[in-house]
Amino acid sequence: MQKREFSQSSSSKSLNINNINPHIKEAKYAVRGELAIKSEQYRAQLAKGEGKDLPFDSVISANIGNPQQLDQKPITFFRQVVSLVENPQLLEHEDVLKNGLGYKSDVIERARSLLKDVKSVGAYSQSQGAPGIRQSVADFINRRDGFPADPQSIYLCGGASAGVNALMSVICASPKTGILVPIPQYPLYTATLSLLNAQVVPYYLKEEDQWSTDVADMRSALKEAQKKGIDVRAVVVINPGNPTGGSLEAQHIQSVIELAAEEKLVVLADEVYQTNVFEGKFQSFKKILRQLQDGDKNKDGKFDSVELASLHSISKGMVGECGHRGGYYEMIGFDPEVVAQIYKFVSIMLCPPVVGQCLVELMVNPPKEGEPSYAQYQKEYDTIFDNLKARAHALYDAFQEMEGVECQYPQGSMYLYPTIKLPRKAIDAAKKEDKNPDDYYCLRLLDATGICIVPGSGFGQREGTLHFRTTFLAPGTEWVSRISEFHKAFMHQFSDD
Amino acid sequence: MQKREFSQSSSSKSLNINNINPHIKEAKYAVRGELAIKSEQYRAQLAKGEGKDLPFDSVISANIGNPQQLDQKPITFFRQVVSLVENPQLLEHEDVLKNGLGYKSDVIERARSLLKDVKSVGAYSQSQGAPGIRQSVADFINRRDGFPADPQSIYLCGGASAGVNALMSVICASPKTGILVPIPQYPLYTATLSLLNAQVVPYYLKEEDQWSTDVADMRSALKEAQKKGIDVRAVVVINPGNPTGGSLEAQHIQSVIELAAEEKLVVLADEVYQTNVFEGKFQSFKKILRQLQDGDKNKDGKFDSVELASLHSISKGMVGECGHRGGYYEMIGFDPEVVAQIYKFVSIMLCPPVVGQCLVELMVNPPKEGEPSYAQYQKEYDTIFDNLKARAHALYDAFQEMEGVECQYPQGSMYLYPTIKLPRKAIDAAKKEDKNPDDYYCLRLLDATGICIVPGSGFGQREGTLHFRTTFLAPGTEWVSRISEFHKAFMHQFSDD
Repeated sequence: MQKREFSQSSSSKSLNINNINPHIKEAKYAVRGELAIKSEQYRAQLAKGEGKDLPFDSVISANIGNPQQLDQKPITFFRQVVSLVENPQLLEHEDVLKNGLGYKSDVIERARSLLKDVKSVGAYSQSQGAPGIRQSVADFINRRDGFPADPQSIYLCGGASAGVNALMSVICASPKTGILVPIPQYPLYTATLSLLNAQVVPYYLKEEDQWSTDVADMRSALKEAQKKGIDVRAVVVINPGNPTGGSLEAQHIQSVIELAAEEKLVVLADEVYQTNVFEGKFQSFKKILRQLQDGDKNKDGKFDSVELASLHSISKGMVGECGHRGGYYEMIGFDPEVVAQIYKFVSIMLCPPVVGQCLVELMVNPPKEGEPSYAQYQKEYDTIFDNLKARAHALYDAFQEMEGVECQYPQGSMYLYPTIKLPRKAIDAAKKEDKNPDDYYCLRLLDATGICIVPGSGFGQREGTLHFRTTFLAPGTEWVSRISEFHKAFMHQFSDD
Repeated sequence: MQKREFSQSSSSKSLNINNINPHIKEAKYAVRGELAIKSEQYRAQLAKGEGKDLPFDSVISANIGNPQQLDQKPITFFRQVVSLVENPQLLEHEDVLKNGLGYKSDVIERARSLLKDVKSVGAYSQSQGAPGIRQSVADFINRRDGFPADPQSIYLCGGASAGVNALMSVICASPKTGILVPIPQYPLYTATLSLLNAQVVPYYLKEEDQWSTDVADMRSALKEAQKKGIDVRAVVVINPGNPTGGSLEAQHIQSVIELAAEEKLVVLADEVYQTNVFEGKFQSFKKILRQLQDGDKNKDGKFDSVELASLHSISKGMVGECGHRGGYYEMIGFDPEVVAQIYKFVSIMLCPPVVGQCLVELMVNPPKEGEPSYAQYQKEYDTIFDNLKARAHALYDAFQEMEGVECQYPQGSMYLYPTIKLPRKAIDAAKKEDKNPDDYYCLRLLDATGICIVPGSGFGQREGTLHFRTTFLAPGTEWVSRISEFHKAFMHQFSDD
């Protein structure tokens, strides 16, 4: 063995860091980067009982929207149905059918109808997803927006990330292809563009206006990119926002669609947080597009050919089933030949996880009023919603008290993204360790408290500003005071006096 | 609506078939292509009761290895455990604990230990997979090969396809990167190389020698590619073979590893059919590599630095859980800096489906002799195995009787890949319809019998030869005689007299 290990130097290898795909090397994905890895090491250390010298006794993963890793319980109805489709033999037991195990009649009916659609959750489905489930998604979109949806244009996927990957893979044709991406953004977008060797065309969200979109800024970013010879083809909007926690009003969505119509941009609407809205009501891009198409502004038909892909996911909302990898995208106005190429692309990976598909169906078609599981479902749903909102506010309130921290009022999604102003001495200390000041701050926070958050550098921010993103998923408020105390001590240590 | 549809011409769109990613356009994936889509249309027609004019009353999908879409039942132990991890509330019910619902004690223990590892199957796991499950895979490899495995080098993935995608994405650095790919091959490999804009370096399998590898042919393909300036970095071997049904002997594997050592090629060993072996015993690349490393031939240490990735999957074998998307790859001898880049790449997609990960654990660590679920597990496993083997032979026997068809003896995997010799008139008829002769044959078979198989053109074949691939998963033998009868009529129609 010794010999084997010894000879594993780069020079003797076919693959080394200098000859692999350079676009993978370039890609950055901080959400699961250095800090997250270090926090996992702390967690393992504590689990082994080896963490006595650490200044904390638990690790809080506030770096990633992973509700069930924290205290969020899965919704009972969903998991009951899934347990039956996984083990259809249960459907033959008296105890199950008689409600002895908590399985109400609508649970059993739903399991049967899903099994009828997919035959077995262990079988590959159609590459774009099981037909009955896509129909159910179409019905949901129709109810949500008041405009019909076509199941043929709906593609189920292994989480919204897989959908973004498919859509961007088709769009990016050359190193000169560009996509407008909000700054700050969830780094899936910039990472995917790196992998595809295409151009990020950044536009800045207006922090002072609840992180809303600013079409003037989008347009100038677009024009500047075009001057450099970049073929800008699409615009990404994340609504409600990740990492920002903002939630767009109809007028903002309208202006984005107007820009897209004028400039022939595909709109990629990341709407995975559509039920995580605390203020106002979620407005879908699809609905606003259809309203524009039917409205006065469309006399010249300029909205008719807009191409929009809207993504949704089972990982977020009150569902929180991240580990099941499920989601969908609806493609509106796409050229059928392009859709056929997307079909081929996704078919190479065969199909999205079928249980994830079933959970998409359950998410878009939950128990209705009057059905046996409705009361429990609604109670669980409301409790999760209320807890999220309460924690968002507790965190917001704590930030209000913290010196040098400014935070927009919580509107939606699962995150807050405050600005932090650090003292000169802290910035110098970071420089000494060859780190960005926000990276340094987050690392110090982790080492002192066991709380893992993500520095603004991982999402992008205006030059000269510093931020961090934290989820508000962790239970209780004790960890919030850990942050406050750390912050106070940090600011004191580096104070300018 | 009329206006909307009308204006959806390519010219008004941002994306059209002529400006999207050209590498997606180039990619070919026949397994889910035109024939498969047509067969699904027939199936839908029959389901709606609109198929009265069709010359068949059922569609047989012999185009894809999808056991549970046909008659294969999932293994009870696996699904029982999964139903409990999906609905942990069951673990609190007396009826479940007392075996009233068929849940034996080892099912309950396993569910508890998996839940301890993943916390909730709805939570994201570590990007490379849950630690306990990776440990279980390492233990399995150790038992299988007699050589230890490191859980840190094991990456769980959403089916082997996702693993191949990650590995090839890292390997392919430029349009001049090449990978040796067997012909015939499962088209995932050529399709992925198309998507990555890299070079397929084809080597031919020896049909007359049970589709074994021929290192002389590999070497000459390699040299020829190098002369063209291609940087050949890796060699793919599929063992047992897809689409060929062959199973390699140790000596063939040794020669491939020798070539890899001499030419510094990464070995990508697709071993997803490792339990589908009817003749002899499966030999893993890992075991043979370790034997070579410990043996006399390694005096100069030439085998020490070989880089090998071995892939396995829950979709095949007797497990057949395709729809759950689970698998793993073990990386041996890879540079740690390269592994870190693979980690980053997979982390962008967050994690593989967690239930798929659980099924990987169950596959590699099934009930052992003496445990409560063992007898039933073993019986189910053996029945599936015996049925597959019996059907392979029934199909082989039928092919023996068919004029112009020659087939290698069934050795493994889920496929047979016979040669067909078609009469001149049939080839002319195909040409008239602008089709390859094998495509034409398979299309005629589908139209006449409802049986969907895949033409050799989808996998690759020596020029001037024709083949088709069929699975032997469909129940019964009635469909086999449908093929025989069609073939007889087809040959008669186009006979040279």
